[in-house]
Amino acid sequence: MGAGRIGKMHAKIISSHPNTNLKYVFDVNSKFANEVATSTSCSVANSPEEAINSKNVDAILIASATPTHTKFITMSANAGKAVFCEKPIDLDINKVNECMKNIKGTKVPIQIGFNRRFDASHAKAQQARVNKEIGELEMVVITSRDPEAPGIDYLKAAGGFFRDTTIHDFDLTRFILGNDPIVQISAFGEVLFDKNAQKENDHDTAMFILKSKKGVLIHINNSRRAVYGYDQRVEIFGSKGMIISNNQTPTSVEKFTNSSTNIKDPIHFFFIERYEQAYKDQFNEFVKCLVNKTKPKVTFEDGRNALIIANAAYESYKKGKVVNISF
Amino acid sequence: MGAGRIGKMHAKIISSHPNTNLKYVFDVNSKFANEVATSTSCSVANSPEEAINSKNVDAILIASATPTHTKFITMSANAGKAVFCEKPIDLDINKVNECMKNIKGTKVPIQIGFNRRFDASHAKAQQARVNKEIGELEMVVITSRDPEAPGIDYLKAAGGFFRDTTIHDFDLTRFILGNDPIVQISAFGEVLFDKNAQKENDHDTAMFILKSKKGVLIHINNSRRAVYGYDQRVEIFGSKGMIISNNQTPTSVEKFTNSSTNIKDPIHFFFIERYEQAYKDQFNEFVKCLVNKTKPKVTFEDGRNALIIANAAYESYKKGKVVNISF
Amino acid sequence: MGAGRIGKMHAKIISSHPNTNLKYVFDVNSKFANEVATSTSCSVANSPEEAINSKNVDAILIASATPTHTKFITMSANAGKAVFCEKPIDLDINKVNECMKNIKGTKVPIQIGFNRRFDASHAKAQQARVNKEIGELEMVVITSRDPEAPGIDYLKAAGGFFRDTTIHDFDLTRFILGNDPIVQISAFGEVLFDKNAQKENDHDTAMFILKSKKGVLIHINNSRRAVYGYDQRVEIFGSKGMIISNNQTPTSVEKFTNSSTNIKDPIHFFFIERYEQAYKDQFNEFVKCLVNKTKPKVTFEDGRNALIIANAAYESYKKGKVVNISF
Amino acid sequence: MGAGRIGKMHAKIISSHPNTNLKYVFDVNSKFANEVATSTSCSVANSPEEAINSKNVDAILIASATPTHTKFITMSANAGKAVFCEKPIDLDINKVNECMKNIKGTKVPIQIGFNRRFDASHAKAQQARVNKEIGELEMVVITSRDPEAPGIDYLKAAGGFFRDTTIHDFDLTRFILGNDPIVQISAFGEVLFDKNAQKENDHDTAMFILKSKKGVLIHINNSRRAVYGYDQRVEIFGSKGMIISNNQTPTSVEKFTNSSTNIKDPIHFFFIERYEQAYKDQFNEFVKCLVNKTKPKVTFEDGRNALIIANAAYESYKKGKVVNISF
Repeated sequence: MGAGRIGKMHAKIISSHPNTNLKYVFDVNSKFANEVATSTSCSVANSPEEAINSKNVDAILIASATPTHTKFITMSANAGKAVFCEKPIDLDINKVNECMKNIKGTKVPIQIGFNRRFDASHAKAQQARVNKEIGELEMVVITSRDPEAPGIDYLKAAGGFFRDTTIHDFDLTRFILGNDPIVQISAFGEVLFDKNAQKENDHDTAMFILKSKKGVLIHINNSRRAVYGYDQRVEIFGSKGMIISNNQTPTSVEKFTNSSTNIKDPIHFFFIERYEQAYKDQFNEFVKCLVNKTKPKVTFEDGRNALIIANAAYESYKKGKVVNISF
Repeated sequence: MGAGRIGKMHAKIISSHPNTNLKYVFDVNSKFANEVATSTSCSVANSPEEAINSKNVDAILIASATPTHTKFITMSANAGKAVFCEKPIDLDINKVNECMKNIKGTKVPIQIGFNRRFDASHAKAQQARVNKEIGELEMVVITSRDPEAPGIDYLKAAGGFFRDTTIHDFDLTRFILGNDPIVQISAFGEVLFDKNAQKENDHDTAMFILKSKKGVLIHINNSRRAVYGYDQRVEIFGSKGMIISNNQTPTSVEKFTNSSTNIKDPIHFFFIERYEQAYKDQFNEFVKCLVNKTKPKVTFEDGRNALIIANAAYESYKKGKVVNISF
Repeated sequence: MGAGRIGKMHAKIISSHPNTNLKYVFDVNSKFANEVATSTSCSVANSPEEAINSKNVDAILIASATPTHTKFITMSANAGKAVFCEKPIDLDINKVNECMKNIKGTKVPIQIGFNRRFDASHAKAQQARVNKEIGELEMVVITSRDPEAPGIDYLKAAGGFFRDTTIHDFDLTRFILGNDPIVQISAFGEVLFDKNAQKENDHDTAMFILKSKKGVLIHINNSRRAVYGYDQRVEIFGSKGMIISNNQTPTSVEKFTNSSTNIKDPIHFFFIERYEQAYKDQFNEFVKCLVNKTKPKVTFEDGRNALIIANAAYESYKKGKVVNISF
Repeated sequence: MGAGRIGKMHAKIISSHPNTNLKYVFDVNSKFANEVATSTSCSVANSPEEAINSKNVDAILIASATPTHTKFITMSANAGKAVFCEKPIDLDINKVNECMKNIKGTKVPIQIGFNRRFDASHAKAQQARVNKEIGELEMVVITSRDPEAPGIDYLKAAGGFFRDTTIHDFDLTRFILGNDPIVQISAFGEVLFDKNAQKENDHDTAMFILKSKKGVLIHINNSRRAVYGYDQRVEIFGSKGMIISNNQTPTSVEKFTNSSTNIKDPIHFFFIERYEQAYKDQFNEFVKCLVNKTKPKVTFEDGRNALIIANAAYESYKKGKVVNISF
């Protein structure tokens, strides 16, 4: 479902995976659907139903516009089809809750597209936390900055900076904390450079502090523009040390001139480049769940909880106070 | 004034400086005073007055217990002697304000001991901000973690984690921001590991977000214990790039084994090691002010303003809300 | 031709390439051939001729035992089929020269498998030399160390450390130098740890200095064992600066403990991991030559010249003197 | 003895050391001698004898022109005065041997100025070798490049690139190898950019391979010009790993722009900056030898042996062959 930028990327991943075939593509924009059909040799579905109800289809990957997600999840789950759904489930917690009710009792695996959990470096850092390599967790610092601001059309549909972008970092925080839940948040948002964000009453710069039940403190900072590339760093600090998951450059070249030393390339430009392997590993994990009949590592509940934190962030921002969170 | 750990360090710097002589040392603990007198060939003053009023003395360096600072500043200023005073001026803003009133009209230079401004790396990062090398400033991230928690006696006198430790980071923030003042703060404090901090209702772990008038967002995180050493990093992010002032290791050695690569030494253990040169450069700057009759780079007002932010931090922490700051 | 370790890797690359199909596999060991046939859905050829002469075959990839290379090159070229041949062409320069004579006049593209030229980092460093980013080239330092010594069977067939391993570095040197030919070499070889190398009168440790016609000095050092992984570094030094192509780690994680800081993972284990993308890009370049009818970037002559340098290295080693080289 | 660039530096170190006083300075150029006398409050000696034979003098530091070294060593030793002598002892091995004969039987400590042994990073790397942290030593790679070529007057007196510059690296090699002596050398020298070197039949670029008795292979590369600063790296490779003593930058700042990342400052400009602490520690070690009556860590024999290697290097260069070395 959906053949836009992200949909096209997923279509390529599905058709290249040794254990999966892409049977149908559907998009309200038939030009996009045809492009995917041509490049992957799949059929264009005339309706979502044609694809979802087909006997030859085992799973539905949802990468369509956000407001259609819950509808497609519900249809797929009720048709007994496994679901992989891009983040966010929806921008409206009420629609998410309704969807949760509607799919209750269906037992299909549903995986939400928080791809960063599958980045080898972030995952290795998280695993170090699980293994107590850094002792007891005390602080987390997440830096997450896009290379450049999106256009106004994207902003209009995105649901606000905290729900569109920081939601990844809220999920990454939950991933790192494991079973220690987030209980408080303080949020700051500013619009410092992006005129489109200003028009939409949105932000381009933001900082957050979150607190877990055990007292772990987490800082997140976001920007819509980092001229040196897609800045993605995670720092995990504990009683016995620190693990940092650092930025990555396309090559390992360093340059030395008469004015500077150790000069490296710009880091990867954006998520397509930086998380290329993570997107593949994420899908491969979904396939493994279907084959082995195991539970997905990123669940519907994970998608819902990240949205609850984003909503609390907006409440904190608006009221200028620390907001308590319960799931 | 004062011959404890910091006083001894200053005594050595004064007596080694090519343009200064250490004439007197005073400490209520005569053993400490005698140690300094012996190692630097200066005299032990029988009273603060003997030193402060001596015709052979041009300047007073105050490194005594915090509650004595304002008294010595006032005495020195009224005696027409230049003053270098360790941070904080006092833990009580009322005493600071009273001191300010009492020295009004005296024209002696007064420099406060925010040594980090004189660290070559932090100063270079700040200069890059001033020179707009990173364009317009948008975010600052300060990581400042001690290697190990102090004893309970230290804690009892220190005035709380935010006033004792974070005050350095509040001043560093003001240094980096220049004439764009801090207007808001949100503060989180936890006690996660230090039993002494728990007994004293103090913190060992803290995070802060500050906002400037122009909307620059600043994050600070602090811990009383980083097992890998004295973690001192400053990251300055703007419209045209980023500058990081990184940690420093005693040697430039890297090791490669069958399990790990690029292994470096632990970073400098604590402030004495990391900021050794900064302390010297700080004092040299003070001497230059006396010689050239210029204004100190770190003023009484800077000392007062950092305390005002620390106080606002405690208010934010207690009320669970963003607190507005005015100086 | 050939379905051993390297052959299997190439078979996978061919069958995954969007523009190529693997039609036949041949190996004297039918078990190996069958494994490739099964995993890539190609046919097992009953003889080299069956594959080489097939109308459905455009190109032959030779990854068989070294002594068979020249025979297959000659057969393929005379059948009008393009050739990709693993290094070395042969261990005996006489056989290489004879092959050169036998294929004279055939116009098929022949590419030799010096995969390191296609590594993005090494290639970027070489490009910086071409673009004079470092001014005039003055020195090159190549570090190239395997993670662990091979077995004795491998050693028996390999033709000696200089011809088997250093040959890659000789080619990389020629790649970096461009049209400035190597004219001299001094070679040292030792056996410090590998008992198999000792039995075979081979080396496990070696160092070389080469000189180009323009006077550029090149150092190469090799080892059969680096416990921290496959050490592959190239340093290019010139009148205006230096470029280093560094080692690479699987993740970007760094760890800080109470005894060490900035600890990274071991670097990639061996060539399969480190040069995975380079092998794909190398084959893709070969396909482009076929499609665009362009000359391969690594020619038969390049393969021959690298062997000539290796032979001169052995002469230098045996005579304890600097040996002149002409191609 | 000697008040040129290096002499002035030593004069400052002597006069700042807590346990030593600079009594006399002597230089054939009285202007230089007067400058040192003024800045350190010492006396100008009318003759070398006046200083060397003074009852108030315990030790002689020789930093005069190289051809005067052996004369002053002999005079000092026969007067029973300890000697610290800058490298090289002399450019002529016959004069060195004669000096050795002339001072035979005198028991004064004589320390030669191979300052790099006292660099904390190089020394830590050497210590790791001694402690077998990298197992059995197999290879050493030393990179040693000056920032810019000296003037022609310097070149005329320096005795050639190998004796003037590489001699430091030959000593560093011996330091690292410990009791495993150098037995062979192969040397390459080129003049690629420095017109003065060309006029003097000297070199500006050089590479060496040395072999120890145990078969350890050592590579050294030198240049008279590295535009990015004084490049000083030592890599020690063994059966259990590798230690690298890396370059050093004045600050720990890194910059990220739209074209590059991790940009650091140029490394230290030259030996005065890079080895500032090493020169102090070297002199302090000499003082400790006098106080504790211990043997210097860098002896007359070390100075002689480094020269023997440099001479062998010239023989290798001229004959185009590997030269055997015996001490």
